[in-house]
Amino acid sequence: MNFSELFDFLKSHDKYVILTHRSPDGDAVGSGFGLCSILRNMGKQANVVNTEPFPPRYDFLYQGYYVQDFEPETVVAVDIADEQLFGSGLAQYAGKVDVCIDHHISNKYFAKHTVLDASASAAAEVIFYFAAECGIKLTDHEAMCLYTGIATDTGCFKFGNTTPKTHMAAARLMQYSFDFVMVNRRMFELKSRARLKVEQLMAKDMEFYFDGKCSMITMTTKLMEESGADPAEFDGLAQLPLSVEGVVIGITIKQRSEQVFKLSVRTTDEVDASEFCKRFGGGGHIRAAGCEIKGTLEEVKAKITAAVADVLGVSENG
Amino acid sequence: MNFSELFDFLKSHDKYVILTHRSPDGDAVGSGFGLCSILRNMGKQANVVNTEPFPPRYDFLYQGYYVQDFEPETVVAVDIADEQLFGSGLAQYAGKVDVCIDHHISNKYFAKHTVLDASASAAAEVIFYFAAECGIKLTDHEAMCLYTGIATDTGCFKFGNTTPKTHMAAARLMQYSFDFVMVNRRMFELKSRARLKVEQLMAKDMEFYFDGKCSMITMTTKLMEESGADPAEFDGLAQLPLSVEGVVIGITIKQRSEQVFKLSVRTTDEVDASEFCKRFGGGGHIRAAGCEIKGTLEEVKAKITAAVADVLGVSENG
Repeated sequence: MNFSELFDFLKSHDKYVILTHRSPDGDAVGSGFGLCSILRNMGKQANVVNTEPFPPRYDFLYQGYYVQDFEPETVVAVDIADEQLFGSGLAQYAGKVDVCIDHHISNKYFAKHTVLDASASAAAEVIFYFAAECGIKLTDHEAMCLYTGIATDTGCFKFGNTTPKTHMAAARLMQYSFDFVMVNRRMFELKSRARLKVEQLMAKDMEFYFDGKCSMITMTTKLMEESGADPAEFDGLAQLPLSVEGVVIGITIKQRSEQVFKLSVRTTDEVDASEFCKRFGGGGHIRAAGCEIKGTLEEVKAKITAAVADVLGVSENG
Repeated sequence: MNFSELFDFLKSHDKYVILTHRSPDGDAVGSGFGLCSILRNMGKQANVVNTEPFPPRYDFLYQGYYVQDFEPETVVAVDIADEQLFGSGLAQYAGKVDVCIDHHISNKYFAKHTVLDASASAAAEVIFYFAAECGIKLTDHEAMCLYTGIATDTGCFKFGNTTPKTHMAAARLMQYSFDFVMVNRRMFELKSRARLKVEQLMAKDMEFYFDGKCSMITMTTKLMEESGADPAEFDGLAQLPLSVEGVVIGITIKQRSEQVFKLSVRTTDEVDASEFCKRFGGGGHIRAAGCEIKGTLEEVKAKITAAVADVLGVSENG
């Protein structure tokens, strides 16, 4: 479905429910509430749903939002590549999505109609160009929603999914009036005291191997409990070991149970993370992959350093 | 001087020395080497100079650069608002600058001709639009230099100096071929092991006052010595206290000598940092200011918390 077909579809239907994926990120929330506002301003009824409550860190995107009371007729999914990502709370919509608006090349085409631009950095970028091409005037709030989706999915224009078109969209969105400095501060700078403490603990105990080419952080159940922090504060730290100069493979070890450890592996272009994790029955992408290793922590670390030595072509005592 | 006058000037002169400011940042290095390459490709002789060696973190911008041997005839300053910023190594150029290309509203107009766009995020943005308007074709390397200048001066498009034109420039620069992911990783993610340790030390000892509205980190001479890290690793940490949720005034205290402490104050829009520092004879901007306080560390902290209590309108024991 192209943009003008999508526009015709949206104009000729009503009573929309917009699905967003579980563990909603800035693009899910931004493109969801952005599209919802666009539909409401077209005179349609529309709600945004998720299997869990939307995180408070995105509350500036759904401030003033209220649920409309109607029987859904049309189901739209945004930023969802696969029905697996609905979560149990939205399971009733499986097989019932009319339109999916997405940017993932891995999209499973589960919807009746799919509007996919795999070159777009974010679903919000797809929606921005849809609105621009169809002459839909955005409100300041919608511009903020779409900007937030793009900024968060690109790490504020840092990641490889950023294109000239992404910057063009940002340039045009910034012509609306919203506080993009606040958005970026909330998305990229602010952290909780608990998170600061957790990051400090991880940095303190970071281990280095092979002349600093490999770094490792370890979250044991004991350490996580003793920190007093919510277990969620230990999420999303996998990039930390790779942020140190000279490191080409950064490994995050998280204890699942007594003798089960989950690895998150991040690499520079000198090492294939996916190949590395395949050695342990895991997999993933070339720069980001994962696997599980069983044993005591000492055994697990010994297995890891042996594999790293092999990958780097160095002696294990190096 | 407008862009076409600048172009005429550059075409009709030769033997350029390009001055960059002391403590060169990404914009100084990027706009300096970018302009140098543009001039050389115009068939001119040109060198870039600084009062100190260019930092290795920017080496990808000056890889392949070599000093040309000639007697300078034309002096151009980039990203320099004031001759005070030359540093002692470039003092001989005071009063002798032919053209200054800058984006600081505080520019002192010390050059014979000034090309100033105070709405530009970076000197590199000024040079990009100059090249675009005058039909100067950039090389991939020049595009990387200018992109780096813009990205670093805007915190990768996060700061309030970012405008739609900034994103437009980035969109057009990204159409050249260079590794912007590497640039952003080096500029915004990578840190040395020593820096990681210093940040960890600071995070560990961060103090909070007044229900977490004020946070404080302290670098005593003793702590800096005991860390074993180069003193330079303790620079640029002033944003750290303000990165914690709920903090409206973040204070970084650095010991200068036995009883002299320098404060860097960062605030959200709830507190005027400049007004705060004026209480102690300092000053600066509304969100970033500094001052010096004399006394023992205990006395200094007591003075600070009393002033913070006053500014926040809370009880000092709050």
